[in-house]
Amino acid sequence: MKIGLLGYGTVGSGAADCLTLHPRNNVELYRVFDIRDIEKIKDVQVKNISDIIDDESIDIVVEVLGGIEPAHSYVKAALEKGKSVVSANKQMLSHHYEELIKTAKENGAILAFSAAAGGSIPWLINLLRAKRVDSFLSVGGIMNGTTNFILDAMQTDDSCNFGEVLKEAQRLGYAERDPSADIDGIDVKAKLALTCDIAFSAMVEPDEISALGIRYINRRDITYFMTMGRNVRLIGMAEKIGGDVAAFVEPMLFSPEDAEYSVSGAGNLISYSCERMGKHSFAGLGAGKEPTGGAIIGDVYDIDAGVSIFKDAQCFSKLKLRTDLAYHRYYLRTAGDFDRTIVSETLDNDVFITKKISVKDMHEIVNRLINSGVEVFAASIYGDK
Amino acid sequence: MKIGLLGYGTVGSGAADCLTLHPRNNVELYRVFDIRDIEKIKDVQVKNISDIIDDESIDIVVEVLGGIEPAHSYVKAALEKGKSVVSANKQMLSHHYEELIKTAKENGAILAFSAAAGGSIPWLINLLRAKRVDSFLSVGGIMNGTTNFILDAMQTDDSCNFGEVLKEAQRLGYAERDPSADIDGIDVKAKLALTCDIAFSAMVEPDEISALGIRYINRRDITYFMTMGRNVRLIGMAEKIGGDVAAFVEPMLFSPEDAEYSVSGAGNLISYSCERMGKHSFAGLGAGKEPTGGAIIGDVYDIDAGVSIFKDAQCFSKLKLRTDLAYHRYYLRTAGDFDRTIVSETLDNDVFITKKISVKDMHEIVNRLINSGVEVFAASIYGDK
Repeated sequence: MKIGLLGYGTVGSGAADCLTLHPRNNVELYRVFDIRDIEKIKDVQVKNISDIIDDESIDIVVEVLGGIEPAHSYVKAALEKGKSVVSANKQMLSHHYEELIKTAKENGAILAFSAAAGGSIPWLINLLRAKRVDSFLSVGGIMNGTTNFILDAMQTDDSCNFGEVLKEAQRLGYAERDPSADIDGIDVKAKLALTCDIAFSAMVEPDEISALGIRYINRRDITYFMTMGRNVRLIGMAEKIGGDVAAFVEPMLFSPEDAEYSVSGAGNLISYSCERMGKHSFAGLGAGKEPTGGAIIGDVYDIDAGVSIFKDAQCFSKLKLRTDLAYHRYYLRTAGDFDRTIVSETLDNDVFITKKISVKDMHEIVNRLINSGVEVFAASIYGDK
Repeated sequence: MKIGLLGYGTVGSGAADCLTLHPRNNVELYRVFDIRDIEKIKDVQVKNISDIIDDESIDIVVEVLGGIEPAHSYVKAALEKGKSVVSANKQMLSHHYEELIKTAKENGAILAFSAAAGGSIPWLINLLRAKRVDSFLSVGGIMNGTTNFILDAMQTDDSCNFGEVLKEAQRLGYAERDPSADIDGIDVKAKLALTCDIAFSAMVEPDEISALGIRYINRRDITYFMTMGRNVRLIGMAEKIGGDVAAFVEPMLFSPEDAEYSVSGAGNLISYSCERMGKHSFAGLGAGKEPTGGAIIGDVYDIDAGVSIFKDAQCFSKLKLRTDLAYHRYYLRTAGDFDRTIVSETLDNDVFITKKISVKDMHEIVNRLINSGVEVFAASIYGDK
């Protein structure tokens, strides 16, 4: 089976290394598309995308270019040629899920993307398996290693402030130079959208998922959480409420009895709760060259062996999200103006615990204040009645 | 696709319920073998095993009889007829793994057994997936819900003693009337043997795995663990040491930073650590009618869809276990006689912390004392240098 690899950056070379170290049958890295000159791959490198898309001997295209275009056009063209595609590109996939899954099916190809949500955690695959034998009540969890690294460092070292930890995360390669995708929850939106796509066989637009990030968290917040005996994590979660789905990204406060409480460093912990089989959690590294490379090649080997469960992935409709149906109590710190009737407890003149309020209303309050230039940090209180 | 179900007890009826609630295509419960008269299944019931084994229209046999014989003979006969088999029978499978996996391959059939280790946790399946792209350093964890229920209750309620909690576990249906399989580690031996079979593509005899159980744990032990800031769990673990594998079952003491520390009730938590992708953990319910039924039907649907990764399971050799290569420090309570040069710290006249000692030597000391009628409890100290 011949692979055409699109992109030889960190993840692409991680996938190539995995193929070399753990080869299988006659699975072969046959062509690599990258516009830079790279000595190591010069025997297989091509700089013209059609040398992969139009080469009928190539069975699988692995796309790790990142970015929405031209990745989306390349993947679509490959699927239209009947090639199966393995992609780790969460932004591209989450924005074009419906179109791509249909294109794959129409052409008898498989579109697999384990590495796009959860890194080396076999998350989407197990979601697809569980879906056939049970009904989901909720899906989600800690889906971004960078923000977990930052929050964990602030909680374990009381001299750390947000700016310093972010710099350290950037130095270690966890955070991008523009950290917005991580700290504003954009990365989690894409992963949660793909999770919902799979769990509910319906397209969720990532841009329609409401998100609060961790950009404005400070040491005072952390001190309050410690007093409450809780740890803060950035969570992406979708809940089935009646016949609808509420999906949101927000910081959430956990107690020691919750597994999320003790997830350290850049770890991820993602769970599904279902009607009959209960709650199942999956923990591991959500990012990094080797974990992501391994997840990609795992998908390739599934396709090679004919056992990829991604052929079960479907998309019947667009899913309208109902964030107004989920109600949480929140920790809220802001000096800005908001409707004080939501306050249940005042911890300081700018720090509050709210009554139960809908996720929709809370996100609107926070985002309105942030957009008017006011500093705000809000986190929901998990399991709080 | 026609299913012949062997056994309509708790697990068998759980699997049948799952088929009814979450049907797929034309997968059909066609025959049920059970020697008792059961009104609910009278239209499909047979009392002669050959009505299933010799019926060529049956594609998949689901075996949930329990016990080694006649389950083993029935499964072997079904595989020889080219039928795929899904079994939850850990004792039978672990004792006959090599023979059955070879019989399956010779006859182009699949032998799948997700439910035999981890219940509804998709453990063996993900082990098979990870194995292709990485090398395992260790596999195992909390694999028995009954003992975890007992240990958790003793740790969270300081009035609980072992005998009372065991009775409660029996009342709730977690523990059998003869609790030996759970509390002496026999259940975990079988699950760990199957885990090693898959992880190392080699047959491990469950009876060759050395085990310490929790039969003699008492409140004094728990009080010492609390002073140490640790929780005790019954662990099954296999570690790669050099070119060899050490596999053992024993109580182990965990700190709050370890995920095992906070696994409550009848929960399981099983992990693999591998060279390049790091540690991955899977948590959920390891037993129960609905979880086990769901895991079984998940395997059936994989076979129906042609995506069962159990066809990758192999057995190249017998694996000789080297428990003499793994070294731990132990908590040890006994009034019996043993070589005191292993003691590093004396907590009371019958309570000790040992130096690092091989698992083999420690298990020999404990089992010799138990066999001579002396009460002993020992637990290794996880992560202790």
